[in-house]
Amino acid sequence: MSSSWGNSIRISIFGGSHTAAIGVNIEGLPAGERITWPEILKQMSRRAPGRDKTATTRKESDEPRVLCGLLDGVTTGAPLCAVIENSNQRSKDYSQLKVLPRPGHADYTAEVKYGGHQDVRGGGHFSGRLTAPLVFAGAVARQILRRRGIEIGSHVLKIAGAEIGDRSFDPVGVSPELLDRLSNEYFPVIDPAAKESMRQSIEGARLSQDSVGGTVECAVLGMPVGAGDPIFDGVENRIASIIFGIPAVKGIEFGAGFSVADMRGSENNDPIYMENDGSIRTRTNNSGGILGGIANGMPIIFRAALKPTPSISREQDTVNLADRTNAKLTVTGRHDPCVVPRAAPAVEAAAAVAVLDLLAQSRML
Amino acid sequence: MSSSWGNSIRISIFGGSHTAAIGVNIEGLPAGERITWPEILKQMSRRAPGRDKTATTRKESDEPRVLCGLLDGVTTGAPLCAVIENSNQRSKDYSQLKVLPRPGHADYTAEVKYGGHQDVRGGGHFSGRLTAPLVFAGAVARQILRRRGIEIGSHVLKIAGAEIGDRSFDPVGVSPELLDRLSNEYFPVIDPAAKESMRQSIEGARLSQDSVGGTVECAVLGMPVGAGDPIFDGVENRIASIIFGIPAVKGIEFGAGFSVADMRGSENNDPIYMENDGSIRTRTNNSGGILGGIANGMPIIFRAALKPTPSISREQDTVNLADRTNAKLTVTGRHDPCVVPRAAPAVEAAAAVAVLDLLAQSRML
Amino acid sequence: MSSSWGNSIRISIFGGSHTAAIGVNIEGLPAGERITWPEILKQMSRRAPGRDKTATTRKESDEPRVLCGLLDGVTTGAPLCAVIENSNQRSKDYSQLKVLPRPGHADYTAEVKYGGHQDVRGGGHFSGRLTAPLVFAGAVARQILRRRGIEIGSHVLKIAGAEIGDRSFDPVGVSPELLDRLSNEYFPVIDPAAKESMRQSIEGARLSQDSVGGTVECAVLGMPVGAGDPIFDGVENRIASIIFGIPAVKGIEFGAGFSVADMRGSENNDPIYMENDGSIRTRTNNSGGILGGIANGMPIIFRAALKPTPSISREQDTVNLADRTNAKLTVTGRHDPCVVPRAAPAVEAAAAVAVLDLLAQSRML
Amino acid sequence: MSSSWGNSIRISIFGGSHTAAIGVNIEGLPAGERITWPEILKQMSRRAPGRDKTATTRKESDEPRVLCGLLDGVTTGAPLCAVIENSNQRSKDYSQLKVLPRPGHADYTAEVKYGGHQDVRGGGHFSGRLTAPLVFAGAVARQILRRRGIEIGSHVLKIAGAEIGDRSFDPVGVSPELLDRLSNEYFPVIDPAAKESMRQSIEGARLSQDSVGGTVECAVLGMPVGAGDPIFDGVENRIASIIFGIPAVKGIEFGAGFSVADMRGSENNDPIYMENDGSIRTRTNNSGGILGGIANGMPIIFRAALKPTPSISREQDTVNLADRTNAKLTVTGRHDPCVVPRAAPAVEAAAAVAVLDLLAQSRML
Repeated sequence: MSSSWGNSIRISIFGGSHTAAIGVNIEGLPAGERITWPEILKQMSRRAPGRDKTATTRKESDEPRVLCGLLDGVTTGAPLCAVIENSNQRSKDYSQLKVLPRPGHADYTAEVKYGGHQDVRGGGHFSGRLTAPLVFAGAVARQILRRRGIEIGSHVLKIAGAEIGDRSFDPVGVSPELLDRLSNEYFPVIDPAAKESMRQSIEGARLSQDSVGGTVECAVLGMPVGAGDPIFDGVENRIASIIFGIPAVKGIEFGAGFSVADMRGSENNDPIYMENDGSIRTRTNNSGGILGGIANGMPIIFRAALKPTPSISREQDTVNLADRTNAKLTVTGRHDPCVVPRAAPAVEAAAAVAVLDLLAQSRML
Repeated sequence: MSSSWGNSIRISIFGGSHTAAIGVNIEGLPAGERITWPEILKQMSRRAPGRDKTATTRKESDEPRVLCGLLDGVTTGAPLCAVIENSNQRSKDYSQLKVLPRPGHADYTAEVKYGGHQDVRGGGHFSGRLTAPLVFAGAVARQILRRRGIEIGSHVLKIAGAEIGDRSFDPVGVSPELLDRLSNEYFPVIDPAAKESMRQSIEGARLSQDSVGGTVECAVLGMPVGAGDPIFDGVENRIASIIFGIPAVKGIEFGAGFSVADMRGSENNDPIYMENDGSIRTRTNNSGGILGGIANGMPIIFRAALKPTPSISREQDTVNLADRTNAKLTVTGRHDPCVVPRAAPAVEAAAAVAVLDLLAQSRML
Repeated sequence: MSSSWGNSIRISIFGGSHTAAIGVNIEGLPAGERITWPEILKQMSRRAPGRDKTATTRKESDEPRVLCGLLDGVTTGAPLCAVIENSNQRSKDYSQLKVLPRPGHADYTAEVKYGGHQDVRGGGHFSGRLTAPLVFAGAVARQILRRRGIEIGSHVLKIAGAEIGDRSFDPVGVSPELLDRLSNEYFPVIDPAAKESMRQSIEGARLSQDSVGGTVECAVLGMPVGAGDPIFDGVENRIASIIFGIPAVKGIEFGAGFSVADMRGSENNDPIYMENDGSIRTRTNNSGGILGGIANGMPIIFRAALKPTPSISREQDTVNLADRTNAKLTVTGRHDPCVVPRAAPAVEAAAAVAVLDLLAQSRML
Repeated sequence: MSSSWGNSIRISIFGGSHTAAIGVNIEGLPAGERITWPEILKQMSRRAPGRDKTATTRKESDEPRVLCGLLDGVTTGAPLCAVIENSNQRSKDYSQLKVLPRPGHADYTAEVKYGGHQDVRGGGHFSGRLTAPLVFAGAVARQILRRRGIEIGSHVLKIAGAEIGDRSFDPVGVSPELLDRLSNEYFPVIDPAAKESMRQSIEGARLSQDSVGGTVECAVLGMPVGAGDPIFDGVENRIASIIFGIPAVKGIEFGAGFSVADMRGSENNDPIYMENDGSIRTRTNNSGGILGGIANGMPIIFRAALKPTPSISREQDTVNLADRTNAKLTVTGRHDPCVVPRAAPAVEAAAAVAVLDLLAQSRML
């Protein structure tokens, strides 16, 4: 069921870039949760295009309309469905995409899978636009989580070609204040100098009709000890399976991540100690807050790698599916030279949905 | 449901390090598939401990017994359940684990989650021993896949501290012959010199009462174009969610993986071309064979990072949960100085189960 | 996940009687299926209120709007979401329902479950209006099934108090022509005299401010032998679990149903024989076309019992939840004196969705 | 996934009549629940054959062996798997079943579904023997439920041909004491005279080489108000979907069940009143304790109809699948002339599992 995610709290995302509308249905939410609308719009706005020259200049109407599930701003316990109308459905001619599949896109795989019936307009159901309903769902989830002391935030850790990268979260000391600051920002970066360097790299790519990839780092604070399950329903499994739902993600790592492959156990094991306030913590946090799939109370930290936008206006090699020959292709239209800044709120949203479901699954909600 | 995985083909793993038995129930297998026993045993043997001084010297009986689901060696279409008896259940005194949780282990998280009722003996349900039924399930799955032209293999790409690392799979040219060779080996490494260097690193760790982490790279050849689904049930989501079921995995990346964060689109996009035989391929394979969550026919390639064994015999800092004080802990017993070689068959097994389920889910089985 | 149903084809129903809109999201549909709009509207119309004096005189706009999933009337393989706007959301004062729960309704159970946050207007998410999106989903499913030779139809078998009941389907000989005729009718009844008698009973109930229950019988023709699975995912389990999603259903039986409890084996066993055309059939059809959970190729026949509409305008006993005293209640508003005629298309729709999912689950789609 | 059931508590049943063993894996159980072994054995014994001349005289070893999930008799929170060895696997020649399918059995449907690879010995995975692991799972579940004030019991309400039927449960007054008495009995019947009449009917069927069907009525007391969900995950949907997992069940009804089809609303609506102790109850219980899919605190009452054992030793009509001709068949072996008495504990067990899962799903466990 490709477009649904969740065990106890379930989101179902529908729509395509040029369908009448896109949206999300959220099932299993607890009743009685007040959802503040400006908080929703703030998150939607962080993801929306056209806000910054690092992004596409397309304008999209991203104001969600709640069809059901809220009454006077409070969850009723019934499914919450929200839709976003696609204001401009007049499509240019997209038929070329079925003949000349774009490298780095799902044109060819979808053509084979759906036998030519897929909606290719603007990428259809594969479009990055589908992160809008995900961000909506996350904006709902994070309000419920905040009420339980759980905060989520992320920042852009790296942009390809930037001379200065952002500094990582302090894995034992990342503060709710920092997350709060970042989760209000478009293009959240901890270090201003790094942000400027990243902007320059993106602008350089744009000027040379190219795009750049990057990395987002996300932290979840306040996850209760005991959330998550061993083996296949652990925190890592669940977060990974939803994060790969964000187009362009090609890797995910938790805590020390891939660097554990360079470590000895004596280095990687996080020493456990008793805090003055009686809480149990670890001195390092290579585990990323997860042991045996279960939260240990330390910050949950993960990083996702996002590939450069495949839509670039340079000529590329492809094949002509009609006459089965090699061919050249030039992708036109306005595209993000870098999706990473806009992906940050989607990463947070996915994490929020995953955490809410993990709590429900663990009967801790 | 922590210990089950799969949409259309479902595996349920049960047992703990010191329970009467461990095992796996596999549901949804097609009927009429011959399962060759030596192929099962070969895979079980690759994972079994005590075969090599890089591993623990504990001996475990890993001969599975099929309770049902096979008739004269052929799947009946009914659930296939296999169990492995735990020959030595006499347990040393494990009660210390409930008082002094081991760093890097799930002792503390399980204690909180299960209120002290968890089985701590040998790690209980969190034990690496639970990869034995996973390898069994994978050994069944890969025989069914092979009949459909799909081959799976892996190698140890890196061991912490090894001066020579293995060379990566050729992402466009990795051959079934190489995979076949590797998937017959204990401690599969492409380059013999790299293997020797890895062995030395492991031995060095062992001698200094320490352990080392590493990386496994896995390839799936012959995945039909169109398998997988967009957004949440893509090849990446599904493989990631099962791979994190292997204890010690802290990261996963597909194709170019985290290095996409350093790339421009013109570099990362895989040019598409028509092969002389009429097949459609890409000249590079940064996508790891997956676009929009769907297989494009190129090799599916991913890497998983495994942390160093947390059980080391050096003294470590922890807390005493009984009197809530800081404490010291020394873990005794025989432990793998490195689990990475033994994890390789588990990674392949998980991939095989995931691929079989992806085919079923895509109605391509 | 209360409002979703399906393993491989999944429907998610959302909305309430007085929310902005109601709708359904359908996932897993095969791509390339042409969906004819008049066929959709015909089914929607059969369920819509205000068509007949046996039903409520409320008018509802039941024209669905497809947001996504269809392109030029053909399924794309992506989720198909359709919504129906609720034209009249101005609500009378429903606050009484939270204080004086109506007998036979979910007012009290919802009040406890959702802590008073449920949407009580018009029954909220429990409203019979939610069968509209179900009928939409069924209207899509049955077009896909028809293309595979599967026909579904139903009739009103009994209305409480009617002196003449309808005759049952001939369990071995029910024809596609009969089903086709019935599935075009509002208030489908085989025997016109029975229909007239049923109408009189309903009218009698209406005049005495009361309501009546009844039974719907449904048949599925052309189900391929082998669809369905043993034990928990059999045809009976799956159909039953979706049919109880129709409000008012209190019982379901397959084939000879409850009368098997009065039979001997020699009577109940359906003798198997070879038809002249080489097909294998049974001479009777007490099994209702299902053996071991799996279709045997005979007509699948089941009956559902529907309770009388609980909304009646007579004074009834209830409690006052505010001051915890016994109380009297008179339900006002326009209500169906009998929902059974309008439930028939919902029963067919649920059966269609179940059958489509069973085929997909059995990898026979 | 044919043989698994449950959302939050999940049982997976495996094995066949003549496989090495049968069993069940239970996932999601809360940790810390003491499971008393004699209570398990008592339930197993009620289902076991050979206890009474109303049943088959075959002897089966039905002593379960717990492989994992219990430690010193207490649930650990990890999967609980139990197996029952099949002592006599030497099979007579069952090859005839693949050629001459038995009326009323799944021989033909399985042959088509599994392409001849199914295990036909003793009915394979379709065997009534598979209710043994179900009864085991139920025996675990009911101990957990009892600790939460929930009691489950059933009785044989009707046996075909018996001149005296049992009296029904008092739907508002059925007592835990009565349920407790019945759930200790083999062949539970409220009225001794009815039981004697039922025995005579069964004996009559046996003597004439025939079998008889019947009805089981089950009650669940103490279900907390608010358990269950609207539409598709209501108490009726969930109980129905598991009860049809018991072979021979052809119908299920809740509360007044099919008789609602003969009622007026004024008759069927259960008047609500305030009990002296401040609890809210209904004066009648036509709803069977369920409104809008959610428990209202009254006894949950349902009835299941079971068909007569299809294995009878009279000659029957069938087809020869090898040469595609009409044929005669005489089923040999020892068979239950009536499975209804032995089905009662299976009905209770299924109800117990369903109720436990409903509580977990409703986050009330």
